[in-house]
Amino acid sequence: MLTDLKDAVFKANLELARSGLVIMTFGNVSGIDRRKGIVAIKPSGVAYDSLKADDIVLVDLDGQVVEGWLNPSSDTPTHIEIYKAFPEVGGVAHAHSEFATVFAQARREIPCYGTTHADVFHGPVPLTRLLVESEVAADYERNTGKIIVERFAGIEPLGLPAVLVAGHGPFAWGRTPADAVETSVVLEQVAKMAYATIVLDPRLAPLDRHILEKHFLRKHGPDAYYGQKKEERQ
Amino acid sequence: MLTDLKDAVFKANLELARSGLVIMTFGNVSGIDRRKGIVAIKPSGVAYDSLKADDIVLVDLDGQVVEGWLNPSSDTPTHIEIYKAFPEVGGVAHAHSEFATVFAQARREIPCYGTTHADVFHGPVPLTRLLVESEVAADYERNTGKIIVERFAGIEPLGLPAVLVAGHGPFAWGRTPADAVETSVVLEQVAKMAYATIVLDPRLAPLDRHILEKHFLRKHGPDAYYGQKKEERQ
Amino acid sequence: MLTDLKDAVFKANLELARSGLVIMTFGNVSGIDRRKGIVAIKPSGVAYDSLKADDIVLVDLDGQVVEGWLNPSSDTPTHIEIYKAFPEVGGVAHAHSEFATVFAQARREIPCYGTTHADVFHGPVPLTRLLVESEVAADYERNTGKIIVERFAGIEPLGLPAVLVAGHGPFAWGRTPADAVETSVVLEQVAKMAYATIVLDPRLAPLDRHILEKHFLRKHGPDAYYGQKKEERQ
Amino acid sequence: MLTDLKDAVFKANLELARSGLVIMTFGNVSGIDRRKGIVAIKPSGVAYDSLKADDIVLVDLDGQVVEGWLNPSSDTPTHIEIYKAFPEVGGVAHAHSEFATVFAQARREIPCYGTTHADVFHGPVPLTRLLVESEVAADYERNTGKIIVERFAGIEPLGLPAVLVAGHGPFAWGRTPADAVETSVVLEQVAKMAYATIVLDPRLAPLDRHILEKHFLRKHGPDAYYGQKKEERQ
Repeated sequence: MLTDLKDAVFKANLELARSGLVIMTFGNVSGIDRRKGIVAIKPSGVAYDSLKADDIVLVDLDGQVVEGWLNPSSDTPTHIEIYKAFPEVGGVAHAHSEFATVFAQARREIPCYGTTHADVFHGPVPLTRLLVESEVAADYERNTGKIIVERFAGIEPLGLPAVLVAGHGPFAWGRTPADAVETSVVLEQVAKMAYATIVLDPRLAPLDRHILEKHFLRKHGPDAYYGQKKEERQ
Repeated sequence: MLTDLKDAVFKANLELARSGLVIMTFGNVSGIDRRKGIVAIKPSGVAYDSLKADDIVLVDLDGQVVEGWLNPSSDTPTHIEIYKAFPEVGGVAHAHSEFATVFAQARREIPCYGTTHADVFHGPVPLTRLLVESEVAADYERNTGKIIVERFAGIEPLGLPAVLVAGHGPFAWGRTPADAVETSVVLEQVAKMAYATIVLDPRLAPLDRHILEKHFLRKHGPDAYYGQKKEERQ
Repeated sequence: MLTDLKDAVFKANLELARSGLVIMTFGNVSGIDRRKGIVAIKPSGVAYDSLKADDIVLVDLDGQVVEGWLNPSSDTPTHIEIYKAFPEVGGVAHAHSEFATVFAQARREIPCYGTTHADVFHGPVPLTRLLVESEVAADYERNTGKIIVERFAGIEPLGLPAVLVAGHGPFAWGRTPADAVETSVVLEQVAKMAYATIVLDPRLAPLDRHILEKHFLRKHGPDAYYGQKKEERQ
Repeated sequence: MLTDLKDAVFKANLELARSGLVIMTFGNVSGIDRRKGIVAIKPSGVAYDSLKADDIVLVDLDGQVVEGWLNPSSDTPTHIEIYKAFPEVGGVAHAHSEFATVFAQARREIPCYGTTHADVFHGPVPLTRLLVESEVAADYERNTGKIIVERFAGIEPLGLPAVLVAGHGPFAWGRTPADAVETSVVLEQVAKMAYATIVLDPRLAPLDRHILEKHFLRKHGPDAYYGQKKEERQ
């Protein structure tokens, strides 16, 4: 069932591991079949080098396993909340990548300081609030998803395809599982450069809005002119 | 004698080297056979790429060599003190990994700033005191073990499976030699992220206790739900 | 047509990717045939591991494609402005390499703090001004080239073979596409070391001018004595 | 002539490149035959991946080439001054490795903050003064050697087997070319950790002298007990 989706999710998980963004088993990628309402996700706590395409678990939007013999990632309810709130999203990736996690730990948004950022993120990378005690006590992972969605009120999710969960780390997304991993990689680079930029000048103003707009729009939207064929552009 | 233990210790030493946590020969992993009271440990000053399983040295809990033609690691008495004080521990790893050593040199504990830390360490990573002159003059390595044990008064060793020896570097442990290496890897990542978090915000408060508890307990203890089968969970 | 130039540009793009200076497709190298007035450049948004020599696009100095079935890099007009203003330049490279980009984002020149810098750059690495809104609205990439050229008024381009575009990142050049990549690699190392030097001492004075001159001139110009044969020296 | 020495120097140069301490051709290792008074050294500006054992150049202690068809490293006179002043030294290595160079650029000694440092360096890593204009104008490389020797008045060179040349970078040495490379690797790690330690606590006092002494002496001198056989200890 859904062999293509499981294969795409399997490959995206391997790509996440290969990119150096995860240590141990601290990361997961999922994808969704919108027509069937089924999410494919990495099993919990399985080492990347022993992972097989067949280990990918299928769950419905209530988090019930519909196929697979392993437990799905413990972060599955967070992924599901993102899919339910953002209909354009087809893949979600989560990794405790170093500098994105540092901003999440320091509870700071990542300001847009340069065009590398503006190429992918149409503004600062948002930060959620911390969960209160009752939100942690029950349905912790689902509530993590809910505060992400809460933070994106009025924000176009594909224009800002990542979030920092305060005290935890980043979630990133895109039209496909592979896109979500690619965004995770760029996010980490952007976070690393923002960190060092802040060290050099703690009071630096963000990039002028007209340059941010230009860079985002030359890659995204109806007038984009970066890359090859419009149809293949993300 | 104890071929399986020697093999596990040999493989854990190679994994430590592969993880990039050691330079030169500055690192060692040991394991213990609790019934026999025998510790298997890396020989002193032997390069990782020429190390063989047969080079692993067996010592008793008085530090006397019971098998092997090489000198055991000069840190052997430190490992032995840890084994004697912490009966749940089955493996110990020591490496001068960069950021854990930086905290040890700066004589600062590693505060818990995020869930990556809380997944493995049930509180800040403890720091020992410095050794006084007489403790250095005689039985230096054994005294290093003693100040580790002294620092853990009232602390559950598997809940906080690492320590920073002031002015020196980290020791980490677990149920097996492989676990001790895995903890060393996570410790280094946690230390690296804590370092950059402090640079971004030197006055940041640690993570809320209820989030720390949640993350630790979803991976450890009777109500853990991370990973696959309870029996295989560490 | 121009098979040798296309091959040199192809290889220089692969070398840029191998050097670790680019993430995703964020980088491009070009080369010029001065007699024909033709520039060879990487196609836009094509992954390095699927790039073939035949994908390299040929454009004239008005930016019109004269050979190739793919769109040229969106940065092509910037490269062309550099070629038009600096007749000694035979290759141009652009990458969002981490620390050079950090200086561009922080809008700081890279001061000369040591002989590694002086070996390649005959003074601080210059920074452009930011583009104003009208310069971004139309002909953005060409205007990026124009502010680079504007900044180099009175500077010998092969004596200072790189620039930081404010809020964006570095462009580097040389007599050949391979030289431009080599300069990019040294620039990144120099930027990384200048960053940490500033962290250690934010008020440090630059290297004495007589040492800078010595190091630059022992590698460049008529009295150079570094390396092997004068004819092969860049 | 001196095939074994040339081979040892060749291999040590490759090891230096493999260790990640050099970019481009910015590094060189030499060795000396004390009875013949001949130094073997890397040729100037030759890429490491095309270097052959036969390319190693032999020079006498006046810097005259006695065998080889390539120019010796431009730093040859610096190496020679070190050999002439320090009779115990059998190999010298020079690389612009990142953090050792950062300390040289910031013109700071590397304080001893931990036992990793004390294992190899019997005190802070010394810094030379800057060369004055006349010392740069003529015999620059020889004068670089002279200020190294000047700085080591009263210091035992094998007890402190490295120096930072102000505004330039480190030179390291040992009984053999391989030892010099090994010291370079440890120096870089020690510098990297000292850097981050200073960032965490700019006013930190160095490690207590009795711990420094203990660590240095358990690896060096008549009472050393680290490693395997006394005869093989460096």
